[in-house]
Amino acid sequence: MTASIIGVGLIGGSMALEVRHAHRADRIIGVDNNPDHAAQAVALGLVDECLPLDEAVRQSDMVIVATPVGTAVGLLPHILDIVPDACAVTDVGSTKAMICDAIRQHPRRSRFVASHPLAGTENSGPSAAFRGLFRDKLGILCELGLSAPDATECIRALYAALGMRLLFMEADEHDRHAAYVSHISHITSFVLATTVLEIEKSTATIFDLASTGFESTVRLAKSSPAMWTPIFIQNSRFVCEALDAYIKNITAFRDMVASGERESLTQTMEGANEIRRVLAGINGKQQRAQ
Amino acid sequence: MTASIIGVGLIGGSMALEVRHAHRADRIIGVDNNPDHAAQAVALGLVDECLPLDEAVRQSDMVIVATPVGTAVGLLPHILDIVPDACAVTDVGSTKAMICDAIRQHPRRSRFVASHPLAGTENSGPSAAFRGLFRDKLGILCELGLSAPDATECIRALYAALGMRLLFMEADEHDRHAAYVSHISHITSFVLATTVLEIEKSTATIFDLASTGFESTVRLAKSSPAMWTPIFIQNSRFVCEALDAYIKNITAFRDMVASGERESLTQTMEGANEIRRVLAGINGKQQRAQ
Repeated sequence: MTASIIGVGLIGGSMALEVRHAHRADRIIGVDNNPDHAAQAVALGLVDECLPLDEAVRQSDMVIVATPVGTAVGLLPHILDIVPDACAVTDVGSTKAMICDAIRQHPRRSRFVASHPLAGTENSGPSAAFRGLFRDKLGILCELGLSAPDATECIRALYAALGMRLLFMEADEHDRHAAYVSHISHITSFVLATTVLEIEKSTATIFDLASTGFESTVRLAKSSPAMWTPIFIQNSRFVCEALDAYIKNITAFRDMVASGERESLTQTMEGANEIRRVLAGINGKQQRAQ
Repeated sequence: MTASIIGVGLIGGSMALEVRHAHRADRIIGVDNNPDHAAQAVALGLVDECLPLDEAVRQSDMVIVATPVGTAVGLLPHILDIVPDACAVTDVGSTKAMICDAIRQHPRRSRFVASHPLAGTENSGPSAAFRGLFRDKLGILCELGLSAPDATECIRALYAALGMRLLFMEADEHDRHAAYVSHISHITSFVLATTVLEIEKSTATIFDLASTGFESTVRLAKSSPAMWTPIFIQNSRFVCEALDAYIKNITAFRDMVASGERESLTQTMEGANEIRRVLAGINGKQQRAQ
């Protein structure tokens, strides 16, 4: 089997490593419009070679689009235009509705399986790729009713090779949940970093006062703007809904602090502590899966 | 030397372990108004015994007040009333101005050294205590001009035994920096957890969609309300100032998403990426210190 990975960054590069290791592909072709990234992907052994997009797609049995979501929306109609009849195409985007909408009427829509592996780090580029990134995490497949059974089976097997559990949902449902759980986590980190950098003019002071708590909370602020700008734009409806709820809550918290409402503050934080039970559930499930 | 630890939770218990290991104390007395915590602290070997407050303080060469900051403000005047002449007293509170103000006029103010070890986890209680919590992190000493040289020297030696680097600053300056770097990190985590728990009514969905990014961002939301309520109340001036700046920034971010301002969003996130350099500085310094 020949697999093409369009965009050999953190996600595409890490998928390439797993696909090779699980022996699902005899040949892995990379495509990247950044020549440095393409060269690095070959040098690091992520892919066997890098080719122009059309040339790669035309000889593939499986195509994984692992570009930022704005690029994916633009590329997918063209990829479906030229893809071989038996080839399965998937994407890895953190938004699903706009990507699915872009190809809903495409005559070869059934070759596409919309997916989102819930995995990543704050690092980017081919050198950030590593094995194990996806293991025991969750992959989402959307709108399976529009995909051909053989294409779906190919992508299910891909996710099995990645070691991911699978969940199925509609694109809108995915995007709403992703806004609340993933997208606003990133925004709160970006904004925390912005605020602290603005106010603490001297970086020496941040350096000296930063404790472990600060570091884990702002970790996501290191994430790539090229990846996240199109995600926030494509999912703006649900991201704004989630941010409005968040801003309402943080303003209420601020007012409780300002007026010294000890009991309300304690109750609010006790409510937030419930997240401990939810996170214990996540880790419990991951441990059971190992 | 006999040391008393008032409040044998995560911080007090972890300090007890270091003080014992560094052989600074022949005898460590715990004081805790929670009988279960007192019994656990003895059972876990954190302290040699637990005694009532007055009895412990009267036979100590060093007293470490490791209670929530509201309790510390209430206890310190009484502790200074009864402490032996040569005893050094310190605290570990995340706020410094209100604690220093509470004893500014005390005739034995000079026995007290105001301090804040910048270390912690989201867990609490004696069972959360562990060795290494403080190593290579930062300790702050405040208002040293009001402390006797021998008391200061005793607490400097304590921080050396903990393996902490030391920084000196005034109480107001400490509280302002702590608000920006530590206190609002905790508030953004508490509020993120509250918002996600509210909106995702089904915890099964959070469970299934939570990715690694979400988990690190909300980790601090597991923190103890009993510890954080008095910190936010005591430091309300600077916490509200920091939150106002944060709310202004997140509202601007939301509006950029709503109106699809790609370039402004990208620029804002690129600015936030600067935190990478600051955090690299933290880790670089920690590694050099090892």
